[in-house]
Amino acid sequence: MDKITMKDSFWNNYLQLVKEEVIPYQWEALNDRIPNTEPSRAIKNFKIAAGEAEGKFYGMVFQDSDVAKWLEAVAYSLEHFPDQKLEETADELINLLEKAQLDDGYLNTYYTVAEPNNRWTNVRDNHELYCAGHLIEAAVTYYRVTGKDKFLNVMCKYADYIVDTFGEEDSKIHGYPGHQEIELALVKLYDVTGIEKYLNLSKYFIDERGRQPHYFDIEKEARNDKNAFFYPKEYEYHQAHQPVRGQEKAVGHSVRAIYMYSAMADLALKTNDESLIEASKRLWNNVTSQQMYITGGVGSEEFGESFSFDYDLPNDISYTETCASIALVFWAKRMLDLHVNRKYADVMEKALYNGTISGMSLDGKSFFYVNPLEVFPKATERHSHHHVKPVRQKWFNCACCPPNLARLISSIHHYIYSKREDQLFIHLYCGNESSIEVNNQIVDIEQKTDYPWDGKVSVFINPTYQSEFTIALRLPGWCDNPFLNVNGEEMDIQSIEQGGYVYINRTWKKGDSIELLLPMSVKQMKAHPLVRQNIGKVALQRGPIIYCLEEIDNGENLQQIFVDTNKNYLDAEFDSELLGGVVKLFGTAYRLDSSLWKEDCLYAESKMNLTPIEVKAIPYYSWCNRKPGEMLVWINEK
Amino acid sequence: MDKITMKDSFWNNYLQLVKEEVIPYQWEALNDRIPNTEPSRAIKNFKIAAGEAEGKFYGMVFQDSDVAKWLEAVAYSLEHFPDQKLEETADELINLLEKAQLDDGYLNTYYTVAEPNNRWTNVRDNHELYCAGHLIEAAVTYYRVTGKDKFLNVMCKYADYIVDTFGEEDSKIHGYPGHQEIELALVKLYDVTGIEKYLNLSKYFIDERGRQPHYFDIEKEARNDKNAFFYPKEYEYHQAHQPVRGQEKAVGHSVRAIYMYSAMADLALKTNDESLIEASKRLWNNVTSQQMYITGGVGSEEFGESFSFDYDLPNDISYTETCASIALVFWAKRMLDLHVNRKYADVMEKALYNGTISGMSLDGKSFFYVNPLEVFPKATERHSHHHVKPVRQKWFNCACCPPNLARLISSIHHYIYSKREDQLFIHLYCGNESSIEVNNQIVDIEQKTDYPWDGKVSVFINPTYQSEFTIALRLPGWCDNPFLNVNGEEMDIQSIEQGGYVYINRTWKKGDSIELLLPMSVKQMKAHPLVRQNIGKVALQRGPIIYCLEEIDNGENLQQIFVDTNKNYLDAEFDSELLGGVVKLFGTAYRLDSSLWKEDCLYAESKMNLTPIEVKAIPYYSWCNRKPGEMLVWINEK
Repeated sequence: MDKITMKDSFWNNYLQLVKEEVIPYQWEALNDRIPNTEPSRAIKNFKIAAGEAEGKFYGMVFQDSDVAKWLEAVAYSLEHFPDQKLEETADELINLLEKAQLDDGYLNTYYTVAEPNNRWTNVRDNHELYCAGHLIEAAVTYYRVTGKDKFLNVMCKYADYIVDTFGEEDSKIHGYPGHQEIELALVKLYDVTGIEKYLNLSKYFIDERGRQPHYFDIEKEARNDKNAFFYPKEYEYHQAHQPVRGQEKAVGHSVRAIYMYSAMADLALKTNDESLIEASKRLWNNVTSQQMYITGGVGSEEFGESFSFDYDLPNDISYTETCASIALVFWAKRMLDLHVNRKYADVMEKALYNGTISGMSLDGKSFFYVNPLEVFPKATERHSHHHVKPVRQKWFNCACCPPNLARLISSIHHYIYSKREDQLFIHLYCGNESSIEVNNQIVDIEQKTDYPWDGKVSVFINPTYQSEFTIALRLPGWCDNPFLNVNGEEMDIQSIEQGGYVYINRTWKKGDSIELLLPMSVKQMKAHPLVRQNIGKVALQRGPIIYCLEEIDNGENLQQIFVDTNKNYLDAEFDSELLGGVVKLFGTAYRLDSSLWKEDCLYAESKMNLTPIEVKAIPYYSWCNRKPGEMLVWINEK
Repeated sequence: MDKITMKDSFWNNYLQLVKEEVIPYQWEALNDRIPNTEPSRAIKNFKIAAGEAEGKFYGMVFQDSDVAKWLEAVAYSLEHFPDQKLEETADELINLLEKAQLDDGYLNTYYTVAEPNNRWTNVRDNHELYCAGHLIEAAVTYYRVTGKDKFLNVMCKYADYIVDTFGEEDSKIHGYPGHQEIELALVKLYDVTGIEKYLNLSKYFIDERGRQPHYFDIEKEARNDKNAFFYPKEYEYHQAHQPVRGQEKAVGHSVRAIYMYSAMADLALKTNDESLIEASKRLWNNVTSQQMYITGGVGSEEFGESFSFDYDLPNDISYTETCASIALVFWAKRMLDLHVNRKYADVMEKALYNGTISGMSLDGKSFFYVNPLEVFPKATERHSHHHVKPVRQKWFNCACCPPNLARLISSIHHYIYSKREDQLFIHLYCGNESSIEVNNQIVDIEQKTDYPWDGKVSVFINPTYQSEFTIALRLPGWCDNPFLNVNGEEMDIQSIEQGGYVYINRTWKKGDSIELLLPMSVKQMKAHPLVRQNIGKVALQRGPIIYCLEEIDNGENLQQIFVDTNKNYLDAEFDSELLGGVVKLFGTAYRLDSSLWKEDCLYAESKMNLTPIEVKAIPYYSWCNRKPGEMLVWINEK
């Protein structure tokens, strides 16, 4: 089995943080041991279901999924940091899950405890299949990492029961989940077990979705539910407005959508289904070319946590849920598996270094659910902005994002490489020492780099014996002038580039090395002219990192700052003392001078008077780790 | 009595429209005779209360106020257009109101029909005193115009009962209305009757407001109401967070606030109360120097229809209710009565020519409740923008704005002049022939002008006999270089200017004339640098008129348009064919060229490429009277 050992100055910090802060804190939270915080009761629910405690179900109907995501994060973390005590804790929890499972395989604390007779009566709203999906994902990962199969067996038993319950046969329910997730989990379960019915059920859920007569109507009538769905456009909200292959635009709840698109990409690959490949690419293009923030955030509408319409990307009232950016990473990786092209990896990188990790403070102790690109703290008191928090929160009533981020970060090593036949792809640049099976042998491969702060990447290749295969390295879209050499010899990039990757095919032998230089200039990025919110504005980018201005560095009223786009004059410098060590940008900009403005005058015929000032920009992901205040990504252009 | 006869090319159209379209349409609406529209039942409620019909109360608790506002609009309209049939209809309605009045004077159809035992149990929410206020205002106007006193007597009887019910005596309720309005109505009732207890009750309501223990808590406990108030900051919402004299900022529901401020100005004048004068001026400065849109719109927050915080003036999600701008006109007039200064009249003029009449279509058949400064129609489908309608609506469930606008427009002639001792002030310029008592004699005064399209104003003065008095004319703040002559002789403005008015004191005789020239240049207005939404943008103004761009003239994506602020190059021209005859602005501007932008690319390092285009701007008030589409007031600055 391939083994990736992370040795990265950037991500190892995060891995450490997840192990030392996030996982322990979340364990305390799941066990209701955080003072002055609304209890989670997620573990208690399992204890009640297992007959180990008395009480009522408490929390969201999808409270089980917090436990699942925590277990998955633990499993991934154990890959980096073996920890007997933590593994014992996980094993005990898995024992509890096993006890909470009913004889027929069913495992869901909400229905077991609160509505034992109403299973599967509301798959649209009540997240049974969603929770099952997260538990399956956790079980698969736990099995892969620890080799222990108890959790996997528990979940196979549950999955078998679900297979017996849903499907095209007359005797089965012709439904599919309101919140997609199990679709991608079943593919993983198929991958690890080889049992085809899991893959087929995933395919069934995807194929059945959006067909008429509509299952959400059928089950609604069956439970005699007369209420209108809370959000308008019920079908769109659930991406069930038409069969998935006909969907042109990303609509509705963004996390549901992207989990589904991820499963579609999985199934497209496994089944080589052309229509599904087409749909996946079409939806990818829509999301990333029309509906994505420059940070890799998606979901511009708070109401329904949803996509809005093409090019509608407000910066101050965006939803941009951390989980949606996480989902985008999942999806990007699957699109890469389907078709290697840097457009997928570039977005994956963008989300990883910006819109996902912005969700967590640098000490791992607080979280953003919503990741806006512009914060004026006083404006967040407006009802229109109520979902935007000016500072990260300790925990959430709906605590989906923190454990999701924990499992993403802990699994970062699974996004670096992929393989196809005799080709090894390097998608992400980060320090690691790895042993990867390529061309029927183990190849030791080491990356050394100070990415994302420096674009020099050294790759050392040590095959067991010399052999011909291909190593393909991504040339990030943000880099205009990459430079490549192999064993000190400069390569003609153009001749070996395809889809944004350089394909180096040769006979590799011990001691070979690749050096990739990706010069990182400070870029003033513009948005598509149809993004009306960003017209006349620029965002600063260096390498994969998107920058922002913070009040603590630049004073209040950041909107008064203008940058001169006629020159690229901002300097970049690594500052080890700043925000755990980041490259900051600094230089001269301009500020609207209000000193000449007459007091008590709100409107006047007046010239814009700009005064030179010094500005400092910091990586977007690291904002709000010092004194809270204003933040701005899109800066006025002089 | 003074008599103002409107002969104005601008306002006479509106007066005609109100008479011929709005008043008849609203009468049909009040009588539930508009097909395919939710019925008003406002008249039916009175019939039920009067015992003339059977049924339940229907509509808002303040449904009575629609009838009152209609009656007041009718009364004002009769001043311009005597109409026996309309007056008979009004008289019949007044007969009905009289029948609906209970023996003790009480007159409110909601409580009479729906909750007969619960009068005055919820003055915070249920608008009894608000409805009483509107009925009183209507009665006063109807009496002033027609000389008939039946309605006035009905309302005096009701007011007497309210005086007996509310007040500082132990036996009385120590409360005040949740929605202010009766305060200013009682001052009008005092003015017409001379009965001091009405003035005193108004003063009581104002003085008692915001005192502790808080009346809203007391009555809430008395009715055993355990519910939290729907909006946060209950006291602020009602401007009852502290006694009015201590209030520093305009907060809460903007119409309630400004009705209250209007009453405060009334009382400050009548009682010469210094602390109330100070509070009025302070709140005026806050509203107009920190919280007012350039159109005279106020209330930037939809939730609670309320003020937001200083300089928080979003253009696309503003609330800017038509009624709030109307209220601003009421208040401005009262501030002028308190203290003649053009800052009051300038705002009055701004609201009259922009943010109020934008609420009605040019055919008088449809209305905006919300008057945003930027509309991108597709964005109004967002939940964050749901209150913003891209086209005017026929009628509203909460139909406060259309009849309010009708009564404002019909009373326009009362805003032109005011008098103090031997001084006659001209605040507004519009064609009219008037007979005004000044200095103990009737002075005939005529204005001739093509205002607001042309700044030439001719004033002809014909006193009955020659006499010395002062005529003071406003020099609008928007005019940089006014020119004045009297009987053809140029006056030195500077020497006779005070507070933005030129005071012409002389012995006036028959045949005297004043000519005021107010050159109207096209101005590129900027907002205060703290209005973060307008940084880097300009609004076009000419004379008192604020302009906007519409999609029909300039194509879609108006945000891509830039104007060059280094030159004042836009031309102005009266176009009799356009929008009923308006001065349009036109000239060269620039549009962001998106033709070079790569398809499927959302973000790129790119220069802003501007291409010259022709633009056309139209008066803001007249937007959305042709093909619906985008609209924009604040335009990007090149």
